[in-house]
Amino acid sequence: MSITKVGFIGLGLMGGSLSIALKKLPKDYYFIGLDHNKEHCKQALELNLVDEITNSLDKLKECDIIILSIPVDGIISVSKKLKNLPEKCTVIDLGSTKEKISNSIPSDIRKNFVTAHPMTGTEKFGPSAAIDNLYKDKVVVLCDLEKSEEYQVKVAKSLFDDIGMNIVCMNAKEHDRHAAFISHMPHALSYALANSVLQQEASDSILNLAGGGFKDMSRIAKSSPTMWEDIFRQNKTNLLEAINTFQSELKKCEKMVENEEWQSLNNWMSDANKLHNIL
Amino acid sequence: MSITKVGFIGLGLMGGSLSIALKKLPKDYYFIGLDHNKEHCKQALELNLVDEITNSLDKLKECDIIILSIPVDGIISVSKKLKNLPEKCTVIDLGSTKEKISNSIPSDIRKNFVTAHPMTGTEKFGPSAAIDNLYKDKVVVLCDLEKSEEYQVKVAKSLFDDIGMNIVCMNAKEHDRHAAFISHMPHALSYALANSVLQQEASDSILNLAGGGFKDMSRIAKSSPTMWEDIFRQNKTNLLEAINTFQSELKKCEKMVENEEWQSLNNWMSDANKLHNIL
Repeated sequence: MSITKVGFIGLGLMGGSLSIALKKLPKDYYFIGLDHNKEHCKQALELNLVDEITNSLDKLKECDIIILSIPVDGIISVSKKLKNLPEKCTVIDLGSTKEKISNSIPSDIRKNFVTAHPMTGTEKFGPSAAIDNLYKDKVVVLCDLEKSEEYQVKVAKSLFDDIGMNIVCMNAKEHDRHAAFISHMPHALSYALANSVLQQEASDSILNLAGGGFKDMSRIAKSSPTMWEDIFRQNKTNLLEAINTFQSELKKCEKMVENEEWQSLNNWMSDANKLHNIL
Repeated sequence: MSITKVGFIGLGLMGGSLSIALKKLPKDYYFIGLDHNKEHCKQALELNLVDEITNSLDKLKECDIIILSIPVDGIISVSKKLKNLPEKCTVIDLGSTKEKISNSIPSDIRKNFVTAHPMTGTEKFGPSAAIDNLYKDKVVVLCDLEKSEEYQVKVAKSLFDDIGMNIVCMNAKEHDRHAAFISHMPHALSYALANSVLQQEASDSILNLAGGGFKDMSRIAKSSPTMWEDIFRQNKTNLLEAINTFQSELKKCEKMVENEEWQSLNNWMSDANKLHNIL
């Protein structure tokens, strides 16, 4: 069996966990890693996430597959440096936003690219955050596939299929609006919730009482600011729309409590319960 | 060893899980259940959560301990019906609000009462929701203990201690403010988040993309409207204060994104990250 060479640009949670997932397959891989953080490079080697570290983008062009598992602004800047890719090289980015990325990839390598968003993650980051089964049974969204070469689409689909992901295809514009509602705005809420409690005088006493509900809702407030600043910037318009929608819903709740419209409040809560039938 | 008789008024998640927890102790208990929902009574017997069902409050007065594990408005109305309690009978309510309850208990049985709030739960309800280890290693807040008889305080503390809970004492007023921030307002957010997505035209496609973050944040939006309507009513003022605090934080985030103040946004996210050091 021939060896598939995979280059990881970015050795954090997403890249590291992908390495773990691929290693479990009955295939032969050779992993080369690149990360501007020297400590992460060292850890990735120690944790056996990669076989080799390089600091040369040219070296990665020898790979069959290049994974871009870095913050979304980084994906755009790295893609501009990836010139003269071999025809069969497949580049897959794992960014949480898709439209700006899809439109920014230089035209001469656009066909090599498949833009993907695995709908999975944790609040942790760095190589030591890499875990088994991060991807299994989760959804991955592939966007604007008409801009990718058929060969590259096949490579990307079979990679995500191999690690047990459910593939959903849509255009990048639609993805970004959906992602704003299902992921980006909820991150804004979680950060805002954490800050609401932390700024209270008795924050320690309050947090001492935290049960499962608060812990679940504030978990993603521990996420990387560097990564999320980029996402909020790239998906600004959709994010603001989602935040506005949420603000209107919360305002409804506030008004019903203020005006003691208890039956309406109960109905509004029952509406939310309908999530049960879907999730 | 003598048998301790425990009466459960309310055979849902909280009462049922407490029965499971007590049964694991090396003590002899006899459980009598009362619930206005006949189906729940039947299920509680089938699930072995209680030894006997009664529909007589007087019958429960024979118990050493009476647990009120019903919605908070129900706790107040039942307490008004619990007259002429034996001196050694201990009544413990598990309501999520404490001030209105603590102040509404009739004076002739106030000393029998210990008002408690176990900071644990799930979004599920009814006897079938009862689970093992719901209480273990969680915090229980005991309020206004100066209003309870020493004997009753000892009984309640040793019960919560026996099932592995960490006991925190504070006055009911302070509890209600803390609970608004750590539990009640987060429930409002979760309901509002669920409704924000469910009202979107493409809600099915959006929800199809839900990862762990959204699932965690929307989990408690599946909670019982009956139970939460009562809590929001009883803790109205604190809840509105907490919602306002949250709205200001989210507004800050919105403005920073709108005005593209990325460094300030990054700092605001880093502030939220401090939760890491505590939770």
